[in-house]
Amino acid sequence: MSGNTFGRVFQVTTFGESHGVALGAVVDGLPSGIKIDTDFLNREMARRRPGQSAVSTARNESDSVEILSGVFEGISTGTPIAMVIRNSDQHSKDYGNLAEIFRPGHADYGFFAKYGIRDHRGGGRASGRETCARVAAGALAKMFLDTMDIKICAWAQEIAGVEAETFDADEIEKNIVRSPDPVAAEKMIAAVEEAKKSCDSVGGIVKCVIRGVPAGWGEAVFDKLDALLAHAMLSLGAVKGIEFGDGFASARARGSENNDPMAAGGRFVTNHAGGITGGFSTGADIVFTLAVKPTPSIAQEQMTVNKEFREEKIVIHGRHDPCIVPRIIPVVEAMAAIVLADAALLDRCSRVNP
Amino acid sequence: MSGNTFGRVFQVTTFGESHGVALGAVVDGLPSGIKIDTDFLNREMARRRPGQSAVSTARNESDSVEILSGVFEGISTGTPIAMVIRNSDQHSKDYGNLAEIFRPGHADYGFFAKYGIRDHRGGGRASGRETCARVAAGALAKMFLDTMDIKICAWAQEIAGVEAETFDADEIEKNIVRSPDPVAAEKMIAAVEEAKKSCDSVGGIVKCVIRGVPAGWGEAVFDKLDALLAHAMLSLGAVKGIEFGDGFASARARGSENNDPMAAGGRFVTNHAGGITGGFSTGADIVFTLAVKPTPSIAQEQMTVNKEFREEKIVIHGRHDPCIVPRIIPVVEAMAAIVLADAALLDRCSRVNP
Amino acid sequence: MSGNTFGRVFQVTTFGESHGVALGAVVDGLPSGIKIDTDFLNREMARRRPGQSAVSTARNESDSVEILSGVFEGISTGTPIAMVIRNSDQHSKDYGNLAEIFRPGHADYGFFAKYGIRDHRGGGRASGRETCARVAAGALAKMFLDTMDIKICAWAQEIAGVEAETFDADEIEKNIVRSPDPVAAEKMIAAVEEAKKSCDSVGGIVKCVIRGVPAGWGEAVFDKLDALLAHAMLSLGAVKGIEFGDGFASARARGSENNDPMAAGGRFVTNHAGGITGGFSTGADIVFTLAVKPTPSIAQEQMTVNKEFREEKIVIHGRHDPCIVPRIIPVVEAMAAIVLADAALLDRCSRVNP
Amino acid sequence: MSGNTFGRVFQVTTFGESHGVALGAVVDGLPSGIKIDTDFLNREMARRRPGQSAVSTARNESDSVEILSGVFEGISTGTPIAMVIRNSDQHSKDYGNLAEIFRPGHADYGFFAKYGIRDHRGGGRASGRETCARVAAGALAKMFLDTMDIKICAWAQEIAGVEAETFDADEIEKNIVRSPDPVAAEKMIAAVEEAKKSCDSVGGIVKCVIRGVPAGWGEAVFDKLDALLAHAMLSLGAVKGIEFGDGFASARARGSENNDPMAAGGRFVTNHAGGITGGFSTGADIVFTLAVKPTPSIAQEQMTVNKEFREEKIVIHGRHDPCIVPRIIPVVEAMAAIVLADAALLDRCSRVNP
Repeated sequence: MSGNTFGRVFQVTTFGESHGVALGAVVDGLPSGIKIDTDFLNREMARRRPGQSAVSTARNESDSVEILSGVFEGISTGTPIAMVIRNSDQHSKDYGNLAEIFRPGHADYGFFAKYGIRDHRGGGRASGRETCARVAAGALAKMFLDTMDIKICAWAQEIAGVEAETFDADEIEKNIVRSPDPVAAEKMIAAVEEAKKSCDSVGGIVKCVIRGVPAGWGEAVFDKLDALLAHAMLSLGAVKGIEFGDGFASARARGSENNDPMAAGGRFVTNHAGGITGGFSTGADIVFTLAVKPTPSIAQEQMTVNKEFREEKIVIHGRHDPCIVPRIIPVVEAMAAIVLADAALLDRCSRVNP
Repeated sequence: MSGNTFGRVFQVTTFGESHGVALGAVVDGLPSGIKIDTDFLNREMARRRPGQSAVSTARNESDSVEILSGVFEGISTGTPIAMVIRNSDQHSKDYGNLAEIFRPGHADYGFFAKYGIRDHRGGGRASGRETCARVAAGALAKMFLDTMDIKICAWAQEIAGVEAETFDADEIEKNIVRSPDPVAAEKMIAAVEEAKKSCDSVGGIVKCVIRGVPAGWGEAVFDKLDALLAHAMLSLGAVKGIEFGDGFASARARGSENNDPMAAGGRFVTNHAGGITGGFSTGADIVFTLAVKPTPSIAQEQMTVNKEFREEKIVIHGRHDPCIVPRIIPVVEAMAAIVLADAALLDRCSRVNP
Repeated sequence: MSGNTFGRVFQVTTFGESHGVALGAVVDGLPSGIKIDTDFLNREMARRRPGQSAVSTARNESDSVEILSGVFEGISTGTPIAMVIRNSDQHSKDYGNLAEIFRPGHADYGFFAKYGIRDHRGGGRASGRETCARVAAGALAKMFLDTMDIKICAWAQEIAGVEAETFDADEIEKNIVRSPDPVAAEKMIAAVEEAKKSCDSVGGIVKCVIRGVPAGWGEAVFDKLDALLAHAMLSLGAVKGIEFGDGFASARARGSENNDPMAAGGRFVTNHAGGITGGFSTGADIVFTLAVKPTPSIAQEQMTVNKEFREEKIVIHGRHDPCIVPRIIPVVEAMAAIVLADAALLDRCSRVNP
Repeated sequence: MSGNTFGRVFQVTTFGESHGVALGAVVDGLPSGIKIDTDFLNREMARRRPGQSAVSTARNESDSVEILSGVFEGISTGTPIAMVIRNSDQHSKDYGNLAEIFRPGHADYGFFAKYGIRDHRGGGRASGRETCARVAAGALAKMFLDTMDIKICAWAQEIAGVEAETFDADEIEKNIVRSPDPVAAEKMIAAVEEAKKSCDSVGGIVKCVIRGVPAGWGEAVFDKLDALLAHAMLSLGAVKGIEFGDGFASARARGSENNDPMAAGGRFVTNHAGGITGGFSTGADIVFTLAVKPTPSIAQEQMTVNKEFREEKIVIHGRHDPCIVPRIIPVVEAMAAIVLADAALLDRCSRVNP
């Protein structure tokens, strides 16, 4: 109930603070009989890892995952898989001056209001570092989805106002901003670097497509598939909005334009809905778009208050991402995978004869 | 798990089909000692009720709520409050021709794929009529929030591309589109009527503001307050997108613009975040915006398939809302109230001394 | 969380007070495609109904169930099935003198301590009458289990110290105490009648056997199948103990006696374990035994206190069961059915290929 | 849903196999502001640890707990506390001959039936070793309960048919069987040693008393406090029965004997109910009794089958507890503490003004 567990049958519980001993995830409900591909797991972790490029933080964490349970002879046993990621960097002094003040745009103030505790070490539990555990859990979910030929792909559609204008899936992992348009990628990188130089940060738009989900996943009322995905995506601190298919544009369309007709064989002629209608997957590609805010940690002076609510100036030192978009992409995929693994299992319970 | 229950401590379970015997809700977890104001409950139901204006369906349901349990001498006892709304109109023949084909833009196909059943009577469980149970449950949540002086207000910010340009809260319930701008309201009404004449439908943008929530509600990771609200809002079939505060615009802002500085006393100077940062309420107004798609049921011929996936033409008769925005507004408020009532209760569990 | 919902995938939510308008259940997660046999449902309700014999209360409630949703053309649709049972007897004055005092052996005092409310009308939510909703839900669970040839049978093994010494399943429903031994039945009835004449009540032992459950249902750790059944059974107010298989006797046996050896083909030679080992069903009959306390409502003077904790004498008038054992039997079966329906569904999620 | 998480607001998730890398627990929902006493945690672990006496297994595990998260400057922060216990003994060959056959009285067969996997290393997840994670979690729950002056005490009431006849709480931890009667303790120890010599094992009866719980904890219907405790206790593989207060004896008592009268001030004159009536704590001591079966792992030849269901003889080598009663006692206390911590938090949500 304290919100560190996500999912219904496929359940992910995460733990760990940015500057504590370790972070990790316990994945419960992964079916038995799945080959656990640790190389894939490590590759997924590496995609999210800091310290990789000019557009992300210079912090360098190895983020290696130790699997503690639930795997026997390389195969999932059906019991919980616990994974631990040690913090190499836990004694950092970078955050020392923050013990008494709240950083603008961060969870600091809300966390203090809730718990009466100011764990100032990098935001503690509310740090973006928490998402490394999600990527580990998502990698397991992807291994399960892979047995059903379901593929998830997210990318940077826009950064700092620069939009991708072409789409080549093979380009995404080839540039440091994860843009499907290599020309736009150059401009995005330049914009991030310029912001960094100005002691500032930029945001962007992430797009995600999921292929291979059969029709009928999701539930009719509260646990509509898009509701679950929205829950998952808005649980990322940097995400401020989500839309499915045409999203906000559909609010300006007419019914006759927005409805997706079906053609012989059950194929959808268009996909304005983004693959989910009335909460159920339709069999078409699931498509959603996310608004990612600019990183709140910036190196210019800002106005804030301390724990006694007296005004103070704050300058946040340390190594922060001038743009979180590239590194949030594997996290978006991980959360989507977790939602779909869960939906896949619950779908087995819908009919009297499965 | 089948997704007809929402909430963690304050839990709402709904049931009922559009053309079945009745719909209803069981509200579990409402604390004891709350005055149950049935007049208010009826007023909330009336706000969502069809058959009220030229811009909504001509169907006329009385939507009267019978309370079956959980209230003693006008006060909540702490036990579940069951509420039933009988369908007066359940034997309608309007849907007879739909038994064998899937309506474009509806849950019909997904529902059939999931359950192997085609309950064609008005969409069955996946009908918008299901939301009347949410309004009843939301009315109870509002009574609880009222004891804490928390107020929720939603309105039509835009319909058919016509935007509200002024804001007067007192105007909202005075016009049939629930616009805070009486001049825009006239234009919105004209646009809806024009679409209706063309056998078409239109969508719009709903905005919601919540005042009085103290800082610290919501959880740090998966159950961020915005994640819970997004889950709640995307569980409405017509909603295709949500954004908090500046939302998609924040994706184009810089960190120095987007961060909300705090001033003496803990006041936020700006509210780009929409009252939630890092998943916790900040004490500022909670603000979110929803994309509402045009009603999929339109009276012009559309292309679709039947249960054997052969192409057919479909013309949907019956009395449908040419624009669902005005009637979704009380449902949005209800779902917001349910999320907040739940967050209020869980917040009592955060500290060793409550 | 307030404990009016039971189950994980197959979820039963109940509501209603003894002397309120109605009681009922919402069953969520029943798979689609199950024939809903309302005759069977009514027969199950009749088995629990009061007013049937000399050994039960003289109150007469028709207990007819109205199904409000989830069934289309006689078949479950996969959506929640809501059932309502109206109270015919809700204006009884029998409880008038109880408004200010706590009945010994009842939930009155605990309920008041928790909620600060004294809903004195027959115990309100904590009345045994609440179990009629469980029987309705259990009847649906039995219809599902029936598709897998799983059968549940409970009976009175002992009443007022009189034990059944023979076992004939066909006898159980032929006598008013539900004893499998017709000779013991006569003595049990005499003992109950004698207690009733002395303004007193008696308890007894209920036994339950479940046939046809395949090996492997239940989970390895917290949701062991016996743990779930224990939870279900102890959620009946009159049940004060449960044992599986040899139960307390196994505490005095040696390992070599208590272990159940397996023989060729996977058959168990003995069944000391009662069909569950390490939390998983073994494929052998599931067997458990319940201690049922004597009804607390008795017509002799008892000592108690009022809401100000001052001593008072109490004499409980009204029509109470001098022995609840015969009427708890269908409730025990219903709760067992609910647990098993839930375990059946979750079991579908255990392996990568179901 | 796969049953590795227990609790509603105070939630414990455990992981780990007997012979895997590590076991552990993630405790979510412990309120902030609690002093984390690691000495106490270690003492609790030591109480359950194997290798301590002639009546328990000779295996020697250090069972040291590493806290990975959720504690800052010695105080709980409100975020999940992850604890890991490394297996020192994970490469044991003792179990090598068990890969193809099912041990009588163990979960082996059910686990294989469910998951299609035979993780033969000491029972894997279904091993008693799993309970070390529960003791760690229970220690945190006890720290929270301690702030409310709630104390839990369990002991061996009977072993191998030898009953404790006197009660001195101070004696319990002074003898290796945890008997409150030092004279009976001697006889119990002799009986266990005799069984061990005969390559056999014995069971016993554990009693538990909880002092200081206020009236009104627990819920009215499915989550009665006794139902939750029964769930918790039957989730221990060796427990085959539970009774509250007079339990099975109350089935033979009359209502007039079994009801507990209240006297001035709200004091209960007797406590036949064991401190819980109608599912709510009454404020009297909570008392329950458990049947613990003899350890199934015995060194004499037993009949069983292999994975092809062909008969085989089995002799279980390795170091097993000839009686699990002494070591299950701290686990019983831990599970009771977890249930009560959870009930304490939910109780905060019952009234409009907490």
